[in-house]
Amino acid sequence: MGDAGTVESDGRALMRPLTIAFPAWLGAFADRTRVYGSDEERMRLAIDLSRENVLRTTGGPFGAAVFESESGRLVSVGVNLVVGLGNSVLHAEVVALMVAERTVGSYTLGGESMPRHDLVTSCDPCAMCLGAALWSGVRRIVAGAMREDAVAFGFDEGPVFDESYRYLERRGVRVLRGVLREEARGALELYRSRGGVPYNG
Amino acid sequence: MGDAGTVESDGRALMRPLTIAFPAWLGAFADRTRVYGSDEERMRLAIDLSRENVLRTTGGPFGAAVFESESGRLVSVGVNLVVGLGNSVLHAEVVALMVAERTVGSYTLGGESMPRHDLVTSCDPCAMCLGAALWSGVRRIVAGAMREDAVAFGFDEGPVFDESYRYLERRGVRVLRGVLREEARGALELYRSRGGVPYNG
Repeated sequence: MGDAGTVESDGRALMRPLTIAFPAWLGAFADRTRVYGSDEERMRLAIDLSRENVLRTTGGPFGAAVFESESGRLVSVGVNLVVGLGNSVLHAEVVALMVAERTVGSYTLGGESMPRHDLVTSCDPCAMCLGAALWSGVRRIVAGAMREDAVAFGFDEGPVFDESYRYLERRGVRVLRGVLREEARGALELYRSRGGVPYNG
Repeated sequence: MGDAGTVESDGRALMRPLTIAFPAWLGAFADRTRVYGSDEERMRLAIDLSRENVLRTTGGPFGAAVFESESGRLVSVGVNLVVGLGNSVLHAEVVALMVAERTVGSYTLGGESMPRHDLVTSCDPCAMCLGAALWSGVRRIVAGAMREDAVAFGFDEGPVFDESYRYLERRGVRVLRGVLREEARGALELYRSRGGVPYNG
């Protein structure tokens, strides 16, 4: 085949499909027959995911889920899988959003004929995840532990400012922070008590 | 199996592995035997990727690549695959970073024993991708077309401010913008001339 053939097959190998295999235990948290009526119920699931991720040692102390806003139906769940899967993009929110989009069969959760969607996350989204939430078409972001809590435990949240939230609000994405904050902080505490160290920085 | 079994298997199906299959043509651009000595050479590859993505109708007019900073060796390439793959996270930069991390076998490109890495992208990274770049451990971001160019063509870049760049610089990530800007803008122009419309908003 000569050089060109070799190069091409190298390139093909480099760009072979990328498969993200989620921890098997996550499936048990994805009970799509349950309705999560209130923000607190939805947040409790996100917190349960964040704690379970620590206990199972599958990643950082962060959990997230996507719900249909009005019906409260669960659409997807996610946890931080950065270290275990060797992929710095796989924050809990990104995992939940990617799975939600696969479930609805579209790159947007904000289509005109769709129910509205909420992203519920155990901690204020970092800069990457705030952007990811905006592009996903969710209409609300509900967060538990706050940026200051994450920073106090050594996690960097990236360039997120008050103006960032206003930017999302202007584009029709409501942001509700501090829901069950103390319970959500507990997962960060649990992670530290088990010897977990922030993997950034 | 009863209800519990049904629910569990629903959850398992929801959280089955997620596979991202890249367009076959991308492999031909991933010539890892070539050295890209200058920022302009590296940017030209990112621009070529952005144009090819339009011509092949596999996504939006954005391309990116990761290089070893000093050697100029190519580590990965990426293009925007949002609409085609139904996944709003798959911006060119995210694709290039995920593939690069798979290639080096780590969630970070900034490990102490590693060569430094650059992310080169045909357009200023959006809020999500700027965050993703920070978490990836690249030491430099080199961008072509500017935020204003993308906005002029109807693309939203999200909450990125001057302070965002300063935040990255303080964490040791240099940001160089406007490299081959006019050539990079050309891909946005090409996309519009072919009837492409921004998919956000």
